[in-house]
Amino acid sequence: MRRGMQRALEEIFTPARVRTAPEDLATWGGDWTRAFKVAPGAIVFPRSIDEVVEVTRLANTRGLHLVPSGGRTGLSGGAVASNGEIVVSFDRMNRMLDFNAADRVVRCEAGVVTQALQEYAAARNLFYPVDFASSGSSQIGGNISTNAGGIKVIRYGLTRDWVAGLTVVTGAGDVLECNNALVKNATGYDLRHLFIGAEGTLGFVVQADIRLLTAPAPARVMVLAIDRFADILDVLQCFRDALTLSAFEFFSELALTKVLSHREVSRPFARAANFYALIEFDADDEEAALGAFERAVERGWVGDGVISRSDAQARALWTLRDGITESIAPYTPYKNDIAVRVSDVPAFLEDIDRLVSAHYPDFEVCWFGHIGDGNLHLNILKPENLASDAFYERCHRISPALFEAIGNRGGSISAEHGVGLLKRDFLHYSRSPQEIALMRQLKAVFDPNGVINPGKLLVH
Amino acid sequence: MRRGMQRALEEIFTPARVRTAPEDLATWGGDWTRAFKVAPGAIVFPRSIDEVVEVTRLANTRGLHLVPSGGRTGLSGGAVASNGEIVVSFDRMNRMLDFNAADRVVRCEAGVVTQALQEYAAARNLFYPVDFASSGSSQIGGNISTNAGGIKVIRYGLTRDWVAGLTVVTGAGDVLECNNALVKNATGYDLRHLFIGAEGTLGFVVQADIRLLTAPAPARVMVLAIDRFADILDVLQCFRDALTLSAFEFFSELALTKVLSHREVSRPFARAANFYALIEFDADDEEAALGAFERAVERGWVGDGVISRSDAQARALWTLRDGITESIAPYTPYKNDIAVRVSDVPAFLEDIDRLVSAHYPDFEVCWFGHIGDGNLHLNILKPENLASDAFYERCHRISPALFEAIGNRGGSISAEHGVGLLKRDFLHYSRSPQEIALMRQLKAVFDPNGVINPGKLLVH
Repeated sequence: MRRGMQRALEEIFTPARVRTAPEDLATWGGDWTRAFKVAPGAIVFPRSIDEVVEVTRLANTRGLHLVPSGGRTGLSGGAVASNGEIVVSFDRMNRMLDFNAADRVVRCEAGVVTQALQEYAAARNLFYPVDFASSGSSQIGGNISTNAGGIKVIRYGLTRDWVAGLTVVTGAGDVLECNNALVKNATGYDLRHLFIGAEGTLGFVVQADIRLLTAPAPARVMVLAIDRFADILDVLQCFRDALTLSAFEFFSELALTKVLSHREVSRPFARAANFYALIEFDADDEEAALGAFERAVERGWVGDGVISRSDAQARALWTLRDGITESIAPYTPYKNDIAVRVSDVPAFLEDIDRLVSAHYPDFEVCWFGHIGDGNLHLNILKPENLASDAFYERCHRISPALFEAIGNRGGSISAEHGVGLLKRDFLHYSRSPQEIALMRQLKAVFDPNGVINPGKLLVH
Repeated sequence: MRRGMQRALEEIFTPARVRTAPEDLATWGGDWTRAFKVAPGAIVFPRSIDEVVEVTRLANTRGLHLVPSGGRTGLSGGAVASNGEIVVSFDRMNRMLDFNAADRVVRCEAGVVTQALQEYAAARNLFYPVDFASSGSSQIGGNISTNAGGIKVIRYGLTRDWVAGLTVVTGAGDVLECNNALVKNATGYDLRHLFIGAEGTLGFVVQADIRLLTAPAPARVMVLAIDRFADILDVLQCFRDALTLSAFEFFSELALTKVLSHREVSRPFARAANFYALIEFDADDEEAALGAFERAVERGWVGDGVISRSDAQARALWTLRDGITESIAPYTPYKNDIAVRVSDVPAFLEDIDRLVSAHYPDFEVCWFGHIGDGNLHLNILKPENLASDAFYERCHRISPALFEAIGNRGGSISAEHGVGLLKRDFLHYSRSPQEIALMRQLKAVFDPNGVINPGKLLVH
């Protein structure tokens, strides 16, 4: 980093908030992906919207590149700085600014951690329903930029559904106040929705108005044994017709055995099944859930079932699903976060199982995911005797065929992790050439000099 | 309309689907607004996406202007053709194309009438929750283009929230398939949301994937007497903390007296109150609602209340609110559909009452609306002895002060009716100069030759 540039940054941020030490560059220059080179030029820590505007204007006049950075829990490299970019970290913009009980809206800065928002809501007897594994470190700005989903999407939707208003600094350095937390506002193009899920390529999300809701009733959890995958959709429909579900997850017997050998939990049923569904619902709906369970058993879809009788039991059942990622980590799996329409899930799973077993009969495929919303986590496990490099290389050769299978079913090559650097070259499997051309033009409208997150999402 | 042009249209549509008779031009050239000149050049009735593409390409090569037209129930002139435009009516694209029970998604053409979709859902034991006065003639494409809201937004949101996928023909004549009805799809800018609420200025909505949900439990309706407007928000919060509300509407004593003198309904309570709230909720929550009612009475917010004991009684209570528009029609009111944040409603109402009574002490203001979402319907009634023209002219002189009061509170000059021609010149009260400049650039990206709905929403 040239000395003149550093001085210019220090004029905006004061020297304490411009960091260039190698360990700082390594920490703030990357995210949870480990596949990309981490080489930022500097890290800056704005404390106000004005400072974000100033650094954006500086970037426009001096031809700098900026990378927005939140909790750095991304899994697609959307916040990785590989080419001397200035990383703009929101760690110091983490205040709750305003709460209005009549509106049930909290205005917060982009750097507020998801869990802090959840706790802020709970302290007011309200509820922020978007929840996922990284909520202890992910930030609201990052959640918005990837439209984070998680485990309760079937009931509460995605981050998008809770963003009532958005303050953004565009790539041109303009401040936009989008929607002012209004419920109804039919005054032209809703720019707010364009920034949600844009992975920081159009502008910086600097503040957000987040809608909260009444805390739900206590939850019950049920785990069901299902032998034929095709029956899972019938089970989903049977339950959904009878009650409101908060979650409908699935995992395979292989996934379960990995959790059982890794964690202090016991098998939910004496007999193993091929697949398991985990269902969560409000305790008030227990009777309706038991009725649906009986119908599912009568029809031969479900072989066995267990229901939580306490919050502790509910948590223990969730461990069977939550524990999977951690328990397969030693197998350094090749992961892919993908989605198809719910109705296409069974046929798509067969496509992929066939694909993998035809080309790589020695690989184990560990399936789990949010089946209620069509989001599958594919995990191919590394055989013990294969070196990591050789394993990844063979897996990457599967990627095009995998993405083609997704494209053929109109699915998404990235359900909730975004495109970033990881899937940028595969975007055309999910978006048409016309859409990609339009996305490039939109990028040019909001960031005419290409200063924000260049090379992410769209090829530079 | 020149003969050559008509021949070109007839080549695309066959002569039967190109109309130029004066009565047809008058019918399909306008909407429910009556304030604008209606003078289209021709009406065409496509039956397929290909035909929409062809007429759009023709418009681009020959410099024609096209106006998308749905059920023509718009109230801002968004579908009015005043300058020889070709009106593209979706009346013949009204098929349900595909229904998938596992996805709970129906794909339909843009010309499907809202009520037909509601009935289609009900026949499958499902529910399409967006409902409003014009649902018997409004079309899905039009609903999407204005992001229609209605009476149950507090529980079910707006049209936007039910659009899982969208097929669009852009102003350039490209067909875009947006989102394929996926629940989770983090692959870049969500173009779907840009077309929703764009009032047909970026492209034609030709097909939509609409999400349906489980039919709700039977509803109960409660009407409450409230003397101080400021207490209404406390009542809203008291009820919302205790149960899930489907509607929270309000109307003034003046509005009630108009309904009582116009319809065969009786006053809900012996004693008149200044304001009334109408609350709808699931019958299962009756106990919780009665508890909230008692608390609201104890605190002195509510003077009296009545609850429906049958569906017939629920409908009768709804008449007190639904009947307002019709019963004030003889007063040819000056209407405005506006929104502020819920918490700002009481102070905003005072702003406007003060404004009107200061300048026009002889005018009656009739307030009602969806207070649960901050959407107010302002109706100024014409005094009997004043001529319509003089009345409207005086009212229009209020508009800038009204819009300024809205702008000062960060509100919306159009809550759910759109901007169209009616509020185009006032857009800057709700959107910043930067936003309007960006909207123009977005228009140029999707409709580079400006062929679709020119002069709507943005000044031409």
